[in-house]
Amino acid sequence: MKLHQKGELQLLKEIKERFNPALKQKGSGVILGIGDDAAVFACPGEKILVTTDMMTEGIHFNLNYTSAFQIGFKLVSVNVSDIYAMGGKPRYIFLNIAMKREASEEFFWDFFNGISTANSIYGVKLLGGDISSAINDMSVSATLIGAAEKIVTRAGAKVGDKIYLTNTTGDSACGLEILRRLLPEGKNMIREYDFGLVNKVIEDKKPLTLNINSKHLNLDFNTASSLIKRHLMPLVKYPREFIDNATAMIDVSDGLFIDLLRICDDSNVGAKVYFNKIPVSYQMKIASSIMGLDSHSLATSGGEDYELLFTAPDVKCLINKGSEHRNSLNNSLNSEPAAITCIGEIIPKERVVIALDGTELPLKAEGYQHFSTQG
Amino acid sequence: MKLHQKGELQLLKEIKERFNPALKQKGSGVILGIGDDAAVFACPGEKILVTTDMMTEGIHFNLNYTSAFQIGFKLVSVNVSDIYAMGGKPRYIFLNIAMKREASEEFFWDFFNGISTANSIYGVKLLGGDISSAINDMSVSATLIGAAEKIVTRAGAKVGDKIYLTNTTGDSACGLEILRRLLPEGKNMIREYDFGLVNKVIEDKKPLTLNINSKHLNLDFNTASSLIKRHLMPLVKYPREFIDNATAMIDVSDGLFIDLLRICDDSNVGAKVYFNKIPVSYQMKIASSIMGLDSHSLATSGGEDYELLFTAPDVKCLINKGSEHRNSLNNSLNSEPAAITCIGEIIPKERVVIALDGTELPLKAEGYQHFSTQG
Repeated sequence: MKLHQKGELQLLKEIKERFNPALKQKGSGVILGIGDDAAVFACPGEKILVTTDMMTEGIHFNLNYTSAFQIGFKLVSVNVSDIYAMGGKPRYIFLNIAMKREASEEFFWDFFNGISTANSIYGVKLLGGDISSAINDMSVSATLIGAAEKIVTRAGAKVGDKIYLTNTTGDSACGLEILRRLLPEGKNMIREYDFGLVNKVIEDKKPLTLNINSKHLNLDFNTASSLIKRHLMPLVKYPREFIDNATAMIDVSDGLFIDLLRICDDSNVGAKVYFNKIPVSYQMKIASSIMGLDSHSLATSGGEDYELLFTAPDVKCLINKGSEHRNSLNNSLNSEPAAITCIGEIIPKERVVIALDGTELPLKAEGYQHFSTQG
Repeated sequence: MKLHQKGELQLLKEIKERFNPALKQKGSGVILGIGDDAAVFACPGEKILVTTDMMTEGIHFNLNYTSAFQIGFKLVSVNVSDIYAMGGKPRYIFLNIAMKREASEEFFWDFFNGISTANSIYGVKLLGGDISSAINDMSVSATLIGAAEKIVTRAGAKVGDKIYLTNTTGDSACGLEILRRLLPEGKNMIREYDFGLVNKVIEDKKPLTLNINSKHLNLDFNTASSLIKRHLMPLVKYPREFIDNATAMIDVSDGLFIDLLRICDDSNVGAKVYFNKIPVSYQMKIASSIMGLDSHSLATSGGEDYELLFTAPDVKCLINKGSEHRNSLNNSLNSEPAAITCIGEIIPKERVVIALDGTELPLKAEGYQHFSTQG
């Protein structure tokens, strides 16, 4: 059934029936859920954190290779990432959804299945939102409300702190490049895939074929899909292991260097980063090499990794556990600790990167920005 | 300058510089404003209210006759309306904005001027958001956070309560019908108009010409513009005079009858409404008659009036002050009391309307809904 055959009121009724029962749990803090003019809750004694992010068709996602489930899942994750990056715990989410009248009801609920799946992983409750028809482009946004006793801003980095990164960066950008080069068959396969989060696991894991300069090259399915899932369905983790040590923190959404410079700007400090310490996953090395892309550029300027970049005094317990964890992405991963790598240190003023040959280069902001000529 | 020449980072920097200073006021509750991963605030001892609304190009607004200023202003108002309808005071707003890369910087800041103007009227502070480019349609949404000691839901109406409405309904829908029929010259004039809120007041108030069934008919400028401003720039009011008496409340956004039925559903009661008591502004009577529209239909099913519909015991102090106030819409109006009309009463089960000839008809939901075949 198409959305315009169903109508807004019936859709809202079904959303309410589906999501409101969970709000009645004791200790949820919810006073009033979906269905009135506003939702109402209480957060006694805690600081309240709010973040909001939008995703628009053609800019943030391409329906040729992204399912509604994946969009819903990612929308929650990218907002949770911001709350985690402040040291908060996510609680309540509000959605704004504009979909075409011709969209199917199946597509609509697939989106909500992605939202629900992510909500249950992160312990988030849907409390409200707005749905609308759209003329051309689908557009979704979420506002996520979290709570914290103590927050970690971007402004607390101190000279002498080490700079740490969870897992690896560049994988999401590399996954996107793979998606762009996939032949239609591969695009269809990936679009239906939920990467083991629900039930739809791909049985036939034959290599994916990429179109590279009009040549068809194969990429091992597991290598490709581990990168693609980093792009389509990022799973983020609460910084349990280092939240007490972190002096400044940000999630890497626009690119490692651009986000590090944000910490520098807000903390009024400099940074020295060692190129050879920046972790790169072996899957990304393989895939970028096949595609003729520079893995270092992807790692330092690729966006949407949603890893945490933080500064902390030199603490021995923050050991590098390698970057393998991300490659066995599944539900249980969320409780596994993130791999942590020290990539440099905070210095008084300069922002520099030590290149592979030992020369000192200026650390430049290269990442994605909307409205820019390259964007 | 076009937005893609300016770039996201520069725009964000300028937004931060413009809006963050106001957050440093004592008692604002703001712990962290725009610029980190999330905003942070405290609301000790109060219930926290959250509402969110979106507006998309081609569905909620038409750039042929709506300015960016008007869109920004309305976006704040429609969200404030929801918080007022719960008995709350609005505090913090978060925005999601998707604009075309080719949009001008002037257009961008005009939108923010509308946001600022509304924020200062309602005492709201911008705390964060997300900006993105859009391929085809502009799309904006806002999440507004308010606080209240006591809330008024839709669920508290009691048998014997009277049903009250602030000001008049149908004016916004009538204003939209005028806009659709305006000749291009009139559309341009209205698009530039800020209805006296800032500085751009139209000096030359000659009649506006409407295209009605290929005939050109004139409508007095003041009559037309009072209705158009109800549609383009609704100004909403805190229910100071009746908040202590109201047992249930909703803002009339989808249509008077559809929203009354929502109170009935949630309160598990019926309603009897007297058609002849439903207030209709004289401007709406004149304009609807010229356009050949039924003023009663507009008043009972027209959307986007953002008036308050509430139930309360029969209280003498809730007197009808007529519907003239709305027609002198200006900044100071926000402190003037709303006109209040009793349009019926809450009864145990039936939902009926007493027609002009005294017959009893079923009260039917007729309003706007997204995705519906008429929508």
